Amino acid sequence: MNIGIYGYGNLGRGVEDSIKRNPDMKLCAVFTRRSPESLTIATEGVPVVSTADIMDWKDKIDVLIICGGSATDLPGMTPALAEHFNVIDSFDNHSSIPEHYARVDAVAKANGTVALISCGWDPGMFSVNRLYASCILPDGKDYTFWGKGVSQGHSDAIRRIDGVLDARQYTVPVAEALDAVRSGSQPELTTRQKHRRECFVVAEEGADKERITREIVTMPAYFEPYDTTVTFITPEEMKKNHSELPHGGNVIRTGVTGKDDCHKQVIEYKLTLDSNPEFTGSVLVCYARAVAKMAKRGDCGCKTVFDVAPADLSNADRSEIIAHLL
Amino acid sequence: MNIGIYGYGNLGRGVEDSIKRNPDMKLCAVFTRRSPESLTIATEGVPVVSTADIMDWKDKIDVLIICGGSATDLPGMTPALAEHFNVIDSFDNHSSIPEHYARVDAVAKANGTVALISCGWDPGMFSVNRLYASCILPDGKDYTFWGKGVSQGHSDAIRRIDGVLDARQYTVPVAEALDAVRSGSQPELTTRQKHRRECFVVAEEGADKERITREIVTMPAYFEPYDTTVTFITPEEMKKNHSELPHGGNVIRTGVTGKDDCHKQVIEYKLTLDSNPEFTGSVLVCYARAVAKMAKRGDCGCKTVFDVAPADLSNADRSEIIAHLL
Repeated sequence: MNIGIYGYGNLGRGVEDSIKRNPDMKLCAVFTRRSPESLTIATEGVPVVSTADIMDWKDKIDVLIICGGSATDLPGMTPALAEHFNVIDSFDNHSSIPEHYARVDAVAKANGTVALISCGWDPGMFSVNRLYASCILPDGKDYTFWGKGVSQGHSDAIRRIDGVLDARQYTVPVAEALDAVRSGSQPELTTRQKHRRECFVVAEEGADKERITREIVTMPAYFEPYDTTVTFITPEEMKKNHSELPHGGNVIRTGVTGKDDCHKQVIEYKLTLDSNPEFTGSVLVCYARAVAKMAKRGDCGCKTVFDVAPADLSNADRSEIIAHLL
Repeated sequence: MNIGIYGYGNLGRGVEDSIKRNPDMKLCAVFTRRSPESLTIATEGVPVVSTADIMDWKDKIDVLIICGGSATDLPGMTPALAEHFNVIDSFDNHSSIPEHYARVDAVAKANGTVALISCGWDPGMFSVNRLYASCILPDGKDYTFWGKGVSQGHSDAIRRIDGVLDARQYTVPVAEALDAVRSGSQPELTTRQKHRRECFVVAEEGADKERITREIVTMPAYFEPYDTTVTFITPEEMKKNHSELPHGGNVIRTGVTGKDDCHKQVIEYKLTLDSNPEFTGSVLVCYARAVAKMAKRGDCGCKTVFDVAPADLSNADRSEIIAHLL
């Protein structure tokens, strides 16, 4: 299976790492908007190609894994590339997914390609688990918790404050809320009750730390609705203790069955990830396999994780997965 | 969607409860090997029919949910019924699944029916989660824990001991083993390290409790490989505290990604069930929906949970699940 990576940031490198771990996959090229000469990738012997030359690769790639950002890259990139390639992206702006879906579907259907959007863990594996659980327990309630993990958007918001040199923000699920949900009591939880925010900040020398703290904790939408802690640290501490991108979270559905709803049933899916981009990349790679299989069967159009039968994610024989995993 | 239930024990009643919670489903008939007059079911107005008369229902049922036992019922029942009906079963004898699959597949293909086997939670949702996790993290290790929950087979084994009036056996995962697995250290665990067994026994008056305890804890395969505790209780305590059928468990895969395998990634799926048969019934019902959809599309043959795209489990519109669950 010939794979191309389009965009070589954290996610692109995560995809590259995952391809090496899947013997049926071959990385053919990495496409970049930067000058190709400026880029050294982790896989030897694989060409780095300017995105301007991508049409030279039209018939050499089974699936193109698009590793752009959801805010400005993917809305244009995925439909444009789906005209010529089977593609997969990790578009994660939940409220805009229907719009993105419609745009990509039109192009993919018109050109006979398969384009799977919004893959990764949320959206992605969390979505699949929300769907499974809601189908199994129609009388129930869904909860999604995120963290403990680094939120890039919240970290960036802090960095824009005057006097801040660097910042890292962790989203942390509130333990009491998790316990209440797991009990099956179906609590109504406010934003503040579900998550708290931990901020680690490197300030400029002489900066007013009280003002910085106040600006963080009162920032509307980002921090104001949460209990937020701010800890000032040195650049050395930042580098030593906060240079990784861990993340994770929980999708929990609790429901009832039986006479007079007498029995509680709890389904929980939990991720604990040392590296968010490498895990997201790993999910993209196994769904790329499914995209290639769907395309080979003559299917086309925009797809989501909901459309993929689990067997299509696997490189193993059908008889093998039935014998060993069922 | 017209559903028939074939067999009305704990599982059949669980299926019946779930059908009521799914507005697109209608229970048409319950089939029993007992005398139909002897059976009162929970749904008013639904006929109880002798299994001998099932052919009268050939064109009136979209999916027949077979609620027989794996040991002696399903190996013959599922292929026989798949000749005339789209069917689903919960065959759970893991080592015989390939054989059962082959037998059912031949009949279903020859007769143009869809037959989904080995559905429920293990096999079933646990299997799906083992497959997803192994595809996402090819460099990793799988662990399945069961419990805390009632094992019917182990309870029965105790009941066969001389002097025992009643017994209930709980399989309990060992907390230290769960912690070790969740740490991502990929431990090698023995049978004894993973689960322990708690037995509650009602003995005949004057029975030799020491002998009963010895016979339990030394029973090969069932108890000898485990740390087993035996507690003698009164018939009243048995009824009051041990009349439910809770169960559950965890499927955990831990794997590595990144340069030199530097990052640990942990995927966990966890069920905490007040009622094992009602949860299993709920899983069967939403997969019955998928069976009906597959049959409508003209598909046929033996299927497993691996073959079902999550969207096929849902009664909601495609656009709705994309907007609200993705």
